[in-house]
Amino acid sequence: MGKYIFGVDVGGTSVKMGLFDMAGMVIDKWEIPTRTENGGELILPDIADSINQKITKEQYLKEDIIGLGMAVPGPVNAAGVVNKAVNLGWGVTPVKETMERLCGIPAVVGNDANVAALGEMWKGGGQGYDSLILVTLGTGIGGGVIVDGRLVTGVNGAGGEIGHMHVVDGEEEACNCGCKGCLEQYGSATGIVRLAKRYFGKSDRPSPLRNADITAKAVFDAVAGGDEAAKEIAGEFGEILGKGLAMIASVLNPAAFVVGGGVSKAGEVLFDYIRPSFEKYVFPGAKDAKLVLATLGNDAGIYGAAKLVLDME
Amino acid sequence: MGKYIFGVDVGGTSVKMGLFDMAGMVIDKWEIPTRTENGGELILPDIADSINQKITKEQYLKEDIIGLGMAVPGPVNAAGVVNKAVNLGWGVTPVKETMERLCGIPAVVGNDANVAALGEMWKGGGQGYDSLILVTLGTGIGGGVIVDGRLVTGVNGAGGEIGHMHVVDGEEEACNCGCKGCLEQYGSATGIVRLAKRYFGKSDRPSPLRNADITAKAVFDAVAGGDEAAKEIAGEFGEILGKGLAMIASVLNPAAFVVGGGVSKAGEVLFDYIRPSFEKYVFPGAKDAKLVLATLGNDAGIYGAAKLVLDME
Repeated sequence: MGKYIFGVDVGGTSVKMGLFDMAGMVIDKWEIPTRTENGGELILPDIADSINQKITKEQYLKEDIIGLGMAVPGPVNAAGVVNKAVNLGWGVTPVKETMERLCGIPAVVGNDANVAALGEMWKGGGQGYDSLILVTLGTGIGGGVIVDGRLVTGVNGAGGEIGHMHVVDGEEEACNCGCKGCLEQYGSATGIVRLAKRYFGKSDRPSPLRNADITAKAVFDAVAGGDEAAKEIAGEFGEILGKGLAMIASVLNPAAFVVGGGVSKAGEVLFDYIRPSFEKYVFPGAKDAKLVLATLGNDAGIYGAAKLVLDME
Repeated sequence: MGKYIFGVDVGGTSVKMGLFDMAGMVIDKWEIPTRTENGGELILPDIADSINQKITKEQYLKEDIIGLGMAVPGPVNAAGVVNKAVNLGWGVTPVKETMERLCGIPAVVGNDANVAALGEMWKGGGQGYDSLILVTLGTGIGGGVIVDGRLVTGVNGAGGEIGHMHVVDGEEEACNCGCKGCLEQYGSATGIVRLAKRYFGKSDRPSPLRNADITAKAVFDAVAGGDEAAKEIAGEFGEILGKGLAMIASVLNPAAFVVGGGVSKAGEVLFDYIRPSFEKYVFPGAKDAKLVLATLGNDAGIYGAAKLVLDME
């Protein structure tokens, strides 16, 4: 009988769960709803029930389970305590300790954006690179930094907050974090929509996007269709995002940037817009960094959570 | 009889050398000139002679020497090969292999700015922090990044090139690296002089600095003397440098920035100018990073080189 790992990714609406073998193959994959009522007090017991049921159903012995990895949407300290996770309703929550008590197996906990980076390095677009930055272009911009195979969590669990790097001076609107000019104000799905609206407020250029319900997907669809206005908007997006990645590369000299999230569904065309700016701004010695697409989609978290377990010492 | 370590810092005009015990106490410290003629071919043999003479004079046994750490001004790969060091006249140079052959003791090699960070963490201003950035404000800006006690060298040895982060849009003069708007164009000693000259070109404010031979030291001396023009120049310096450090903190969430180099001789007053900008631009979760002064001065390299030896596995 083999050995097994659980990888769990806790999101604001559902919890993704995976059962893995030691080689990282998915044996089973399922979801349960995230019950955020009452300060999210049911979330961990729900997850534990689901895991314990799976163990019983598969007739596994507890000693066959190497451990349980958890990805959570908030800062996590080295003891596996989450310091507030707004989307889950949590205040300070001792996730590792609670899960070990409820499941009777070793648990390890990481921030979801960081853990996703580990997943992409292990089984996704980042395979073959041991120093990489995962750049998740969704509603906001998430980041995960891996150096020499290890996650950079930061001293307060705020490592990898690349969406909140300052990249534009003189911005008047504030980011969700309270600062002005953060990368995610321009490079996220929301940011692209903002750039598009600004563009159409200033330019008279005709475009099917004008007066339409603008989304990041609509912009890149219009780019693919040859729309000049969309290309200019994508150009501004690429200029700013490429500059942000260049700043990171000048500090860390990574092997690759792995780009995921909803915006990345536009595909390789993104890099046509990001790369010229990246090369313009980066320190020449760090210019070789590859730009690659993430491949695991929403499963990056469960893969990374399983890898967290394998990396436990 | 104890065990000993050599720590060597190879500079463009002199080689600093230190003999350390295992606790990191300096037993002896000396310098030899750097002979850069003929592509710097004499540099490594000169160092080896000096070390071998020291071993003979002290009547050490080779097995009492744990190893030899070397800090060199250029990018270094994992095999201890330096890929060009302009100040030494070197092209690709196998430093580790050469020194092991010439001295008969294990050698380990690092980039000088990175190694200095290790020294400051071990015995200098960064003691007590295991995730820190050394920011060396000299003629240029050097950097060394340490995460969880380990140096971030980067995949091409270009890790920590924080002086070449892009921080200002619209700059017209080029940096030495070829890019425009790099941190070292504003935050280094040379950068401060540039800012001062620009200031006096635009402002009529009277100041003892006007028409004088401006240096970074003169600017901060004038700040200490209450000169308003100097304070404005220092304000611009602090605004840009604080912004650059904030960008780094948003990505890495370090415990501290350790500020060294000639400009740091101005002392804590630097932080009065850097901190407000840092706090304005940084991701809130990473705001706690300490700003501290480096304390080892020119000895940071030999300390860090000795620490490289202790960190060998």
